[in-house]
Amino acid sequence: MTATVIDGKAFAAGLRDQIAAHVARLKQDHDVTPGLAVILVGDDPASDVYVSHKHKATVAVGMESFEYRLPADTTEAALFELIDKLNADPAVHGILCQFPVPDHLDERRTVARIDPGKDVDGLSVTNAGLLSTGGPALVSCTPLGCLMLLRDQIGDMTGKNAVVIGRSNLFGKPMAQLLLQANCTVTIAHSRTQNIEALCRGADILVAAVGRAEMVQGDWVKPGAVVIDVGITRVAHPEKEGKTKLLGDVHFQSAADVAGAITPVPGGVGPMTIACLLANTVTACCRAHGLDAPEGLTA
Amino acid sequence: MTATVIDGKAFAAGLRDQIAAHVARLKQDHDVTPGLAVILVGDDPASDVYVSHKHKATVAVGMESFEYRLPADTTEAALFELIDKLNADPAVHGILCQFPVPDHLDERRTVARIDPGKDVDGLSVTNAGLLSTGGPALVSCTPLGCLMLLRDQIGDMTGKNAVVIGRSNLFGKPMAQLLLQANCTVTIAHSRTQNIEALCRGADILVAAVGRAEMVQGDWVKPGAVVIDVGITRVAHPEKEGKTKLLGDVHFQSAADVAGAITPVPGGVGPMTIACLLANTVTACCRAHGLDAPEGLTA
Repeated sequence: MTATVIDGKAFAAGLRDQIAAHVARLKQDHDVTPGLAVILVGDDPASDVYVSHKHKATVAVGMESFEYRLPADTTEAALFELIDKLNADPAVHGILCQFPVPDHLDERRTVARIDPGKDVDGLSVTNAGLLSTGGPALVSCTPLGCLMLLRDQIGDMTGKNAVVIGRSNLFGKPMAQLLLQANCTVTIAHSRTQNIEALCRGADILVAAVGRAEMVQGDWVKPGAVVIDVGITRVAHPEKEGKTKLLGDVHFQSAADVAGAITPVPGGVGPMTIACLLANTVTACCRAHGLDAPEGLTA
Repeated sequence: MTATVIDGKAFAAGLRDQIAAHVARLKQDHDVTPGLAVILVGDDPASDVYVSHKHKATVAVGMESFEYRLPADTTEAALFELIDKLNADPAVHGILCQFPVPDHLDERRTVARIDPGKDVDGLSVTNAGLLSTGGPALVSCTPLGCLMLLRDQIGDMTGKNAVVIGRSNLFGKPMAQLLLQANCTVTIAHSRTQNIEALCRGADILVAAVGRAEMVQGDWVKPGAVVIDVGITRVAHPEKEGKTKLLGDVHFQSAADVAGAITPVPGGVGPMTIACLLANTVTACCRAHGLDAPEGLTA
């Protein structure tokens, strides 16, 4: 293996430390505490775990955490009433509704109800538009986390060839926008792309986000490239009966023999997501108070 | 020369005929006449010509044209008052403010004031966000026109390699989104791109929009590629003293020897822009009345 293994867990821990320092400074200098409100509708056990993690991470950096647990049969009107209240609450700088919501609720309409300035998941049409036109967007957490890891590895990305595999609204498209903003030449590949192997072999930066376990093989990787693996697929463990393991979109062993640096799964991109949610909340808080958002927390 | 020369003028004339038929049908079946309001602030002579062209084209397809000419010293408050009035006017389905506006006015704020559903120039943050997330956007006219020419030449673009040179909010970024939506593998190149010639030689679809006269040479073009030239640079005429001529971003003679099809400058993309403005107005009118937008007029 030749590649540097990018330690997302350590990087995220460092980022959370930076955020904690910013939060302390905001309190001291401006008497402001960033606040994040998380809404959970229903009792999906996985969502419950995510929401608890977010709560703990929020409190750990010294921010205010507001949790709202609504019953599974909550009407849209009741959900929107809560969102409107949080939109108007000056102690709340970030709002996120944990998805998926029950079937009778609509994710797109729910996101659209959140004030774009508090949409710390960066999922709204307004934030997508701000990102694509170079405005002050709140950027979707996972692509933002990938950008931070890339900046840390590469520094100035000007002129690098970046290939993003996957074109989702949640990840592929905002990731491409961020790389373009960083002056990369950006190619978006997807399920209909021809000769994807050859395309990937031209990439200085290869970001895979398709959700197909180990699709990207070592011979798809340009020697020295930085490989970011966003995929997470849970499969039966090959050796331990009854156990599962997580696989990325990249075949780690073969790719790590060629790449210059690579994120593992787990422990690569994953830990960045919650840290970037906290970063976005600080950014939103600073903007709400007319303060410059701290360096390094956003795109 | 081997390439088919794409006749944008003829295609735009056909599109205007289609639009006129839709307008007639909307009147007959729904008693609705699409209306386009154009605002001109100041007396820039070039803008004056553009506005007159738009007015004539609007009337020619049977739509209502509303023209507002405001003095150069119009305040933002007065401009916004007019926009608010037009936003509220059910006879107005499309609103465009001719740019540039005088220096004391801000283009971004002006566009943001227009109801996104009436923003037929497709310039607002909301329409950029809708386009990038696959929602019902109004799409910026020039990239929409290029898409129509490409669809006409190629039909299904699935899996084609498309390279867009230029990353402006006005053209390059929305063009890339449209090609991605059409299932192309899309690369966005720009001034910081390395080895741009080699990159272009891989393109089945090559769209140039940088504003550098004749930058793209024939040996940048893949044999059989479809080349769309969005650039317009006015230069001194090489033979006729005191006269000028228009050049595109593509060196036409050498590229036409290699390409499968190519747009000339002038007479290629240019004539599509006003036709697409009319198309967007019909689309906006249909959406405002809860009707399906006619096939072929939008992305």
